[in-house]
Amino acid sequence: MIDLRSDTVTAPTPGMRAAMAAAEVGDDVYAEDPTIRALEERTAELLGHEAGLFCVSGSLSNLLGVRALVAPGQEVLCDADAHIARAEMGAHGALSGLTMRTWASTRGVAELSAIESMLAPDAGPYLVSTAAVALENTHNFGGGTIQPFDHLRAVHDLCRGHGIGLHLDGARLWNAHVATGVALADYGRLFDTVSVCFSKGLGAPIGSMLLASADVMAEARVWRKRLGAGWRQAGVLAAAAVYALEHQVDRLAEDHLAARELAYAVADRAPVAVDPATVETNIVVIDTGSTPAGRVAEQARAAGVAVSALGPRMVRAVTHLDVTVAESRRAGEVLGDLLA
Amino acid sequence: MIDLRSDTVTAPTPGMRAAMAAAEVGDDVYAEDPTIRALEERTAELLGHEAGLFCVSGSLSNLLGVRALVAPGQEVLCDADAHIARAEMGAHGALSGLTMRTWASTRGVAELSAIESMLAPDAGPYLVSTAAVALENTHNFGGGTIQPFDHLRAVHDLCRGHGIGLHLDGARLWNAHVATGVALADYGRLFDTVSVCFSKGLGAPIGSMLLASADVMAEARVWRKRLGAGWRQAGVLAAAAVYALEHQVDRLAEDHLAARELAYAVADRAPVAVDPATVETNIVVIDTGSTPAGRVAEQARAAGVAVSALGPRMVRAVTHLDVTVAESRRAGEVLGDLLA
Amino acid sequence: MIDLRSDTVTAPTPGMRAAMAAAEVGDDVYAEDPTIRALEERTAELLGHEAGLFCVSGSLSNLLGVRALVAPGQEVLCDADAHIARAEMGAHGALSGLTMRTWASTRGVAELSAIESMLAPDAGPYLVSTAAVALENTHNFGGGTIQPFDHLRAVHDLCRGHGIGLHLDGARLWNAHVATGVALADYGRLFDTVSVCFSKGLGAPIGSMLLASADVMAEARVWRKRLGAGWRQAGVLAAAAVYALEHQVDRLAEDHLAARELAYAVADRAPVAVDPATVETNIVVIDTGSTPAGRVAEQARAAGVAVSALGPRMVRAVTHLDVTVAESRRAGEVLGDLLA
Amino acid sequence: MIDLRSDTVTAPTPGMRAAMAAAEVGDDVYAEDPTIRALEERTAELLGHEAGLFCVSGSLSNLLGVRALVAPGQEVLCDADAHIARAEMGAHGALSGLTMRTWASTRGVAELSAIESMLAPDAGPYLVSTAAVALENTHNFGGGTIQPFDHLRAVHDLCRGHGIGLHLDGARLWNAHVATGVALADYGRLFDTVSVCFSKGLGAPIGSMLLASADVMAEARVWRKRLGAGWRQAGVLAAAAVYALEHQVDRLAEDHLAARELAYAVADRAPVAVDPATVETNIVVIDTGSTPAGRVAEQARAAGVAVSALGPRMVRAVTHLDVTVAESRRAGEVLGDLLA
Repeated sequence: MIDLRSDTVTAPTPGMRAAMAAAEVGDDVYAEDPTIRALEERTAELLGHEAGLFCVSGSLSNLLGVRALVAPGQEVLCDADAHIARAEMGAHGALSGLTMRTWASTRGVAELSAIESMLAPDAGPYLVSTAAVALENTHNFGGGTIQPFDHLRAVHDLCRGHGIGLHLDGARLWNAHVATGVALADYGRLFDTVSVCFSKGLGAPIGSMLLASADVMAEARVWRKRLGAGWRQAGVLAAAAVYALEHQVDRLAEDHLAARELAYAVADRAPVAVDPATVETNIVVIDTGSTPAGRVAEQARAAGVAVSALGPRMVRAVTHLDVTVAESRRAGEVLGDLLA
Repeated sequence: MIDLRSDTVTAPTPGMRAAMAAAEVGDDVYAEDPTIRALEERTAELLGHEAGLFCVSGSLSNLLGVRALVAPGQEVLCDADAHIARAEMGAHGALSGLTMRTWASTRGVAELSAIESMLAPDAGPYLVSTAAVALENTHNFGGGTIQPFDHLRAVHDLCRGHGIGLHLDGARLWNAHVATGVALADYGRLFDTVSVCFSKGLGAPIGSMLLASADVMAEARVWRKRLGAGWRQAGVLAAAAVYALEHQVDRLAEDHLAARELAYAVADRAPVAVDPATVETNIVVIDTGSTPAGRVAEQARAAGVAVSALGPRMVRAVTHLDVTVAESRRAGEVLGDLLA
Repeated sequence: MIDLRSDTVTAPTPGMRAAMAAAEVGDDVYAEDPTIRALEERTAELLGHEAGLFCVSGSLSNLLGVRALVAPGQEVLCDADAHIARAEMGAHGALSGLTMRTWASTRGVAELSAIESMLAPDAGPYLVSTAAVALENTHNFGGGTIQPFDHLRAVHDLCRGHGIGLHLDGARLWNAHVATGVALADYGRLFDTVSVCFSKGLGAPIGSMLLASADVMAEARVWRKRLGAGWRQAGVLAAAAVYALEHQVDRLAEDHLAARELAYAVADRAPVAVDPATVETNIVVIDTGSTPAGRVAEQARAAGVAVSALGPRMVRAVTHLDVTVAESRRAGEVLGDLLA
Repeated sequence: MIDLRSDTVTAPTPGMRAAMAAAEVGDDVYAEDPTIRALEERTAELLGHEAGLFCVSGSLSNLLGVRALVAPGQEVLCDADAHIARAEMGAHGALSGLTMRTWASTRGVAELSAIESMLAPDAGPYLVSTAAVALENTHNFGGGTIQPFDHLRAVHDLCRGHGIGLHLDGARLWNAHVATGVALADYGRLFDTVSVCFSKGLGAPIGSMLLASADVMAEARVWRKRLGAGWRQAGVLAAAAVYALEHQVDRLAEDHLAARELAYAVADRAPVAVDPATVETNIVVIDTGSTPAGRVAEQARAAGVAVSALGPRMVRAVTHLDVTVAESRRAGEVLGDLLA
């Protein structure tokens, strides 16, 4: 099976396993795990932030990051196809008690004016106040889209100007960094809170990180425990993340190549299903046209290719560490044949 | 002062006060207030529903109605300028634990395709499921806009087809009914839960009502108490609502006339500030152009006219029982002069 | 029917109705109702607090008062039979996200040491911190028990010493005041937040009030709106409360007499069912022994006496404005005969 | 340093690390990790339940277990010193919206009558309903106390009789099992939901498990993801838990011996500080008398012994895999000297 459902499915490599087996550990609930502390410091520095908190998932670091900026009864604004809006099980309302309004976008990138027109900072005692804006880079459901840096800077300026917080869901920020060459810290410094993942393209088995100021982090650490997500000797997992940072960042370029190859293979056979020019990183979103996405996913699986059906007519293929460029191209041929 | 900030500012008329003074009452927490029970039955019948629950505000009946359809972690979809999204202090997230995504609209009326494209019913264990859609008729921040009946029916069909609930914020449904002649029950039957208000155009001092099935209502009654909004001898308030239903529905046509007169008076002086053709009921939304809305509201107040600043460049004037058509026209002249 | 289920069942008197009919009103969501503002100021002064907020129920003013002192994830400590623990539908957890631990008491009055041993102020990042203690005076399910003033002062000193907030559920504080002669302000000043009711012994149809500092009140006012409990021309209800304060406080002494007469009548016939010496105000809690409380309540109703079954073997009778001393005695005879 | 702060501080042994390094893994969010599935099945069978869910912490499995039994607005009853009441940061209120009442106990074991008197099943629309009771075995803050099996059975019968759910916080149920010889399944079957931990006495770095019916588990799995605690290739952690089950259960008897030795060493020097007869498993709770617990903990640390200050006059020492019997005795001597 060529498994392209998500880049979360990768298994740790032998080198990574060796690093995990040798990890020095301690009790992280008491902040005494040396491997975790080192990873938190290193990642914070990489992203241009003061402090980091190692978390069990990207959903958790998003949850902690957004709640640090938005109180119960206030709102966060984001894209209607944002991961925080659609793929975190409504946690921000259910657990943080905040409310959300959403804008429309093209493949995950919105017009600045659409964002600006929705802002309602300090809206008084009768209207909901906008406390934060959240962006996603790269944009998952948009198809791995990279937010243009000028756009990020413009949203940053807009929010700063109105005293509104800004969160980045950077689960795949590594991909944007590798594709554009923009430094991680240049991305990171535009945001009050940032979430990055080690268990997607980077290939670690588990783990995400929230980056922010030390003050935000002290409170986030308490909420992490409240959410039942304090963990003990998680240094074994942090060691995998350290290994990933050292050995598996630059290779994301291969995933991007693989994704483009896949897209071209599809487009050769079914030109309306995907425009390869829109494939910027490791995600390919394919329009299944009149065939239900679920059926396409099923037929592909029967032909040895696993993809995700994410909408009535949309399937997603994600390239990663455990599939080669050739396998990706082969998967594109299979999908293209189904949609031709 | 010609007070056009909202149609909530009306004082009870002498006839209404007399009805209140004579009301037969009981303890409504025990469902023993005869005036309330009569009002609930009568309103339920008017709206084509099985049962009603007399509530202290439209925000409360919306809160109870939406939570009856949407569980914590599920989503309700609505307009980005909906009252439930912007003017209920984030209650649906903070108190019901649900999440929200929003669509853009023109004066409160959305394209059916925009709604359809966002639906995600029964989205499985990894994505948020759409449990309900909420519409508002007339649409407050849209400028008192009436939702076309065919549009309502189309949204109804769409939701039914996908097993998705449908809520109506009908705080000013009376205005739509009077303006279009469509029967209240014809509106009401399209929705699973409906909220209507007695304290806006109808002129009662306090009170709103949730309409739904008897099953929904049994649970809503418990949540009303949990929210601290069970009340005792509220028959004195229900008597005002009964009086309003009997004497103050048809007269809403005068408020609509007054609003149009106001809009024409503004447009005569400042044509870009408002298009009178868009004024369908008792609300006039005015674009203040380059002048901040807050300053316009202040200057108008100094000139004897009170309006609400609801956005950086938007003021709202609402006509009602306590202002005459002549006063409304006069207010329009004042506002028009300020914006000319 | 002699209705002793609760002192909430009273209907407004003709004098009160006249006051309501004549009330000057305004829109209280804009804080413009003159009758409400006058009531808030007057009650705040009576209770020795800076500000008041007129609320639709005692449950609401308790909810707002406790949440002002306790953040989500912190705890409030109270009696296991407190109204906030047992009779507010779990609102403090469901809506304010706080947690609760409870102590045992004798008829609602606890040992100081039992309270002290549970305090965990500023408990750090691994344990729940105690943010507030809540007391109830008089104590409803304890049988209308008056908290000894020295006890209140001792709990006050304990909480102050540990930086812990103190809330009073004073729904029936008027009864304690009339029975003991202790000034309302002397009670009120011991607490950070106080809730009192106008719709119980005082006989108003609806209404409660939260008392606290002006800062607490600004935030409470926003949460009142978020909870859907902002109201408009509620001056008609405030007028009833003003009337009650002027005319119906001192008469609570009659209710206390009636309750004692009822208790003696029961005890004459069924000595183990109630000890009249424990009846301090207007509530009589009766032990139904081997007969289920529900059956006793049913049989009493058949004999023209309505009481509440509040536990498997406990019924409660509450005297009030609408029952005479003779009727209460008669009710005691009926209950005593059933239990003899 | 002899670290007795908690049995969570253990580092994985070489054998355990080898098992982790060799673990077969998959994506557990898709329920495809074979090591996790095997662990879930095996633990479920051990505890006499249908299904298991591997969780990041005991707090999480308690949170999921209790919320499966108790809806927002309902109550769970437990001991005032229960881990769920005091050491889970108020999560059950903050995140599940439920409310709690608590009973007093002697070292964590309550009188059956105290439990019985608090039950309020199906309490109707005006009172909070008791939906579940939660017990803890062994009882952490009680001092590692074992709940007598007859007591557990009696509470089970009581809850079953009233249709009330029963949850077990069995973080250290392994210790009770080893100390009493009662089969894990005999304990497990008395409860609707059970939580057990691998990262305490069993010595795994991370991990807990919820046991319940398959229906409960399907919903718990969704809430685990909503809480941000879905994880990917956690098979590396499950492998440690499997290893612990195979090699590190029976050895808990040594921890119990070490705890008794520690207690005797304290009692020899400071008889009022601890009664060795109360030490049933691996926890020793020590009364610091007139010396603040924080100071004792500090002085002990200076002398090479780390313990936890869990109350103003209470320190706790916990024996585990990484301390020998001799070290524990030595720690007892240090503590005893400080308290003599």
